[in-house]
Amino acid sequence: MQWVAVLMGSESDWPVMEHCVSVLKVLELDYEVRILSAHRTPDATVNYVEEAQERGCAVFICGAGMAAHLAGAVAAHSLCPVIGVPLESGGMGGVDALLATVQMPGGIPVATVAIGKAGAKNAAYLAAQIIAVSNSKLRKKLELERTQNMQKVYDQNDALQARI
Amino acid sequence: MQWVAVLMGSESDWPVMEHCVSVLKVLELDYEVRILSAHRTPDATVNYVEEAQERGCAVFICGAGMAAHLAGAVAAHSLCPVIGVPLESGGMGGVDALLATVQMPGGIPVATVAIGKAGAKNAAYLAAQIIAVSNSKLRKKLELERTQNMQKVYDQNDALQARI
Amino acid sequence: MQWVAVLMGSESDWPVMEHCVSVLKVLELDYEVRILSAHRTPDATVNYVEEAQERGCAVFICGAGMAAHLAGAVAAHSLCPVIGVPLESGGMGGVDALLATVQMPGGIPVATVAIGKAGAKNAAYLAAQIIAVSNSKLRKKLELERTQNMQKVYDQNDALQARI
Amino acid sequence: MQWVAVLMGSESDWPVMEHCVSVLKVLELDYEVRILSAHRTPDATVNYVEEAQERGCAVFICGAGMAAHLAGAVAAHSLCPVIGVPLESGGMGGVDALLATVQMPGGIPVATVAIGKAGAKNAAYLAAQIIAVSNSKLRKKLELERTQNMQKVYDQNDALQARI
Amino acid sequence: MQWVAVLMGSESDWPVMEHCVSVLKVLELDYEVRILSAHRTPDATVNYVEEAQERGCAVFICGAGMAAHLAGAVAAHSLCPVIGVPLESGGMGGVDALLATVQMPGGIPVATVAIGKAGAKNAAYLAAQIIAVSNSKLRKKLELERTQNMQKVYDQNDALQARI
Amino acid sequence: MQWVAVLMGSESDWPVMEHCVSVLKVLELDYEVRILSAHRTPDATVNYVEEAQERGCAVFICGAGMAAHLAGAVAAHSLCPVIGVPLESGGMGGVDALLATVQMPGGIPVATVAIGKAGAKNAAYLAAQIIAVSNSKLRKKLELERTQNMQKVYDQNDALQARI
Amino acid sequence: MQWVAVLMGSESDWPVMEHCVSVLKVLELDYEVRILSAHRTPDATVNYVEEAQERGCAVFICGAGMAAHLAGAVAAHSLCPVIGVPLESGGMGGVDALLATVQMPGGIPVATVAIGKAGAKNAAYLAAQIIAVSNSKLRKKLELERTQNMQKVYDQNDALQARI
Amino acid sequence: MQWVAVLMGSESDWPVMEHCVSVLKVLELDYEVRILSAHRTPDATVNYVEEAQERGCAVFICGAGMAAHLAGAVAAHSLCPVIGVPLESGGMGGVDALLATVQMPGGIPVATVAIGKAGAKNAAYLAAQIIAVSNSKLRKKLELERTQNMQKVYDQNDALQARI
Repeated sequence: MQWVAVLMGSESDWPVMEHCVSVLKVLELDYEVRILSAHRTPDATVNYVEEAQERGCAVFICGAGMAAHLAGAVAAHSLCPVIGVPLESGGMGGVDALLATVQMPGGIPVATVAIGKAGAKNAAYLAAQIIAVSNSKLRKKLELERTQNMQKVYDQNDALQARI
Repeated sequence: MQWVAVLMGSESDWPVMEHCVSVLKVLELDYEVRILSAHRTPDATVNYVEEAQERGCAVFICGAGMAAHLAGAVAAHSLCPVIGVPLESGGMGGVDALLATVQMPGGIPVATVAIGKAGAKNAAYLAAQIIAVSNSKLRKKLELERTQNMQKVYDQNDALQARI
Repeated sequence: MQWVAVLMGSESDWPVMEHCVSVLKVLELDYEVRILSAHRTPDATVNYVEEAQERGCAVFICGAGMAAHLAGAVAAHSLCPVIGVPLESGGMGGVDALLATVQMPGGIPVATVAIGKAGAKNAAYLAAQIIAVSNSKLRKKLELERTQNMQKVYDQNDALQARI
Repeated sequence: MQWVAVLMGSESDWPVMEHCVSVLKVLELDYEVRILSAHRTPDATVNYVEEAQERGCAVFICGAGMAAHLAGAVAAHSLCPVIGVPLESGGMGGVDALLATVQMPGGIPVATVAIGKAGAKNAAYLAAQIIAVSNSKLRKKLELERTQNMQKVYDQNDALQARI
Repeated sequence: MQWVAVLMGSESDWPVMEHCVSVLKVLELDYEVRILSAHRTPDATVNYVEEAQERGCAVFICGAGMAAHLAGAVAAHSLCPVIGVPLESGGMGGVDALLATVQMPGGIPVATVAIGKAGAKNAAYLAAQIIAVSNSKLRKKLELERTQNMQKVYDQNDALQARI
Repeated sequence: MQWVAVLMGSESDWPVMEHCVSVLKVLELDYEVRILSAHRTPDATVNYVEEAQERGCAVFICGAGMAAHLAGAVAAHSLCPVIGVPLESGGMGGVDALLATVQMPGGIPVATVAIGKAGAKNAAYLAAQIIAVSNSKLRKKLELERTQNMQKVYDQNDALQARI
Repeated sequence: MQWVAVLMGSESDWPVMEHCVSVLKVLELDYEVRILSAHRTPDATVNYVEEAQERGCAVFICGAGMAAHLAGAVAAHSLCPVIGVPLESGGMGGVDALLATVQMPGGIPVATVAIGKAGAKNAAYLAAQIIAVSNSKLRKKLELERTQNMQKVYDQNDALQARI
Repeated sequence: MQWVAVLMGSESDWPVMEHCVSVLKVLELDYEVRILSAHRTPDATVNYVEEAQERGCAVFICGAGMAAHLAGAVAAHSLCPVIGVPLESGGMGGVDALLATVQMPGGIPVATVAIGKAGAKNAAYLAAQIIAVSNSKLRKKLELERTQNMQKVYDQNDALQARI
């Protein structure tokens, strides 16, 4: 059975990354969450990646801040799609994490999404879209979800019209 | 049959984006190449996206520079994974294209890769990894390709040792 | 009758964009406000743009944050002047929205103003200046408004002189 | 009769700004070109702005690099729409000129377009779109021009399909 | 008698610029403070500059944020040394004001100091150092002031040693 | 007799800094040029600064690239006005040198000018404006020079009018 | 006996730099803390560096913000390894301090670590790793410390698993 | 016997990194050079690091561009000091590599030096200064080398004086 691994470098990343998990729940995807650090627990990270793939992990989502190497380290040890979520930490607005995540050399891609909460959500949507390439039932759920998100914009507009 | 659409905003993007196509060829993936602009041919872009999906397109790769909206416009009209390749144009080193591609709002992800040639290559690898989630034969090709890329580094090292 | 459309990508943009509407009110311009997203409601956005033009809309003002594509998407479907207001969202101070709004390719201009509140106000002044090109009554109102703004600086100076 | 003033801070700006003039010619707009510097000829700049308005100038286009104040200085002395074209000069890719042009305070808008050549062209298109708000003949020319630009993308695509 | 003019673009700049005035007071320099805007009160600014020079103003200090043109506008109308203090406004940390102040074209220098409070203080010290080039009594005061600032560092060190 | 010291960190800075010297010559100011490094010859730098002040040096101009500390180091040892010229070196367009020069702490100002050639020229003009605070003959030369620079803009404009 | 000098430019740097001292304590390294400014107490800084080296100082750690010259000034007067900690001050997130610290010219290295608290800690770890090159007992302590840091990540993960 | 390992991610890094090796040769330090990639040969990198430490490697120098993870990956597997040299690649001037190298999390320091050639040289000087902490003979060589570098500045100055 295909599932998604959600990794993050530190427990301080959880308040942002739980938005990723919320979307995975809505889409009824199986997932595991792990705190694993590319720098502080490098061997445990590699071991997890290899073992998770054997257990059917289809996509890795990696959230990290600063010199955010977690997604790149996972990508170096896997042929599954790896999604990187750059997290804001310190005063640079997450630009450091964005560049450290996205600027990967040829041969080892990381699918990078937006910095912070929007990216955490989109990592889940993207993982679902990837699995849905060969899963039409999940594709249906995504269609429904997108329609609902569209409806939210219409509702926001209606609420604003009522207010002004 | 699943295949990959490679879109770009202008013919001036081709010298970079052909590195994407080269990798797709090596991996023996079916693909189509189109020049389509989010701003100059918006309706043709939407029409192509909808029609390509009906013809079995699994992944969209979109290369664009400056206020690079092509990937976002495609993502807004598709539930296929959309990969964005930010291209350098002018003096900012592609930072404008990177931010315009990656900073997507919650619900509409774009899988962003590195700026320029490395990103163009990685878009192809990432597309292949996505399709390989449910295609073990392609997964084998990717394994072989990665081993060969690894070997190239060893060969580079041998050549350098011989030289110094 | 000529009027101004004020669009924004999300209800969270309203606290900034209402400064735009305040200036339109002062200048007694007709306007409509809509929440419409380039990414989440792309077809509704295009439909609105086309229908608004038929109803005499003269200028579009589009406020958006992050990979701010709203102004560009409207500009791709209209020959009216389109004014883009980049909004701050996250830790980058709105630089992402600025670049995604201003760096448009040749042929599809977006008239970009400052990030955030100053830009929201200036979008309204700019829309008025555009309509005033052929509306001498509005031009008079703008002259008066500018003189009043000038007077505010003199008043600020007087208040400071009194205080120090 | 309405016409467009194209100003630039130095003769070194001409190779970029002539792309602006080329588009004005295609659209058959009347225009004047002047080299005037906000810093080196401040009084001549103000005099020109005031006198040009009396002679029916409808829109000012101002190209400048570095601490690009020309558009802001013109905007401070006019109620015509003022379009700013940030020009690249030195190693920062024009980011200095972009910020000095776009970040105007509330009350004095500058309609800023892209850095360099794309912006120079778009300044002309934007000026035409502004004048076309009350000039349906010019609007027709703009429609034709946009259709032709669209066709160029299709032609680029056809040429690429033939080549690959 | 030589004196210093302290200008700022808005009353919101005063909380930072009063640190400038505090240092001028300590150094017993004569000064005037004015709120004057390069964009909103351009003629009043030029008039003040010309009239202040006739009344013996030796140095202009100009604090402004965003597209900070005040120092440049003053420099364009004066041969006195002009000191620019870039002020933080919005989310960019004052980088916009810094570039708009410092990147002046050849022939019209602005002596730019640090962003914000440190720069406001240093504008006063720099003005004093400029006047002290031909005023040995003021030079003595500056020597004393610098020695006292040095002593403050020693005192801070002593306090820290006592604490840890 | 008052004179200007022009310091630079390396002989590779000379092609830019000689534009500074050219302006000093035109203005007939006395000057000395020295290559002195804040990092590689720190004691020689301090010795020179102290000795130059005794010999009547009125203003120091310091050009340096990268972590450009030369101006700051001179400012720390002098109460003369110190002008910093940030020089471009490597791929960052001189932003590193700009920030390392301008962001001085309270008490030790560096009068920073533009990056590169424009800044090198302006350092000379600024030095002259500083000395001219108490030297009316030099002030006259500066007035003449500024008028001539103004004329050059008019001449550029005339040449352009003739050409187009 | 080898020890570490921890210098900072201002008492306001202490809340960050005390994280450096905490790690030195855990690793049982001898150290001294001093407030010394490259700009405000330049001679005292040089004197301290020279005298500290005579007393067996092995490594200098220098924390500073803005145009952070302290590490560079120490490096210019010492052949001990010098570690620079860029500190955040103002709205640029410490980018100014990072560039002013790391971009040293050939011959005078500064070992730069991350901006702020993470860098302050890492300066201490790096100093210990440097001394441990010839001190196997300290190396053992570092191994233990790293294992404990690794364990903290595992504990964070266990806590998160329990919570979700 | 203590020696230095010089690693780089690709043969394209050699033209910059050979400046590092040149300095190591001048200082007569033992060294090894290897091309090893954090992403393309992750296991070989870890194996080399572990085996090199057993063979007495004292310091690792790692040059890499883009999302430069090599130094961080080495640092995660070693308690030797690790020096990171950010290399320029593409249009961002090496800022991506700088941030990906320097912004390491607490506990895993990377001693980062300047971008490109200056950093490559300084990595060698820093490695030597680290080993010299317990090697007085090497310290003498470094003193001599620094004196010679100082003399080069004096010679440059003499040459310039002769020329102008």
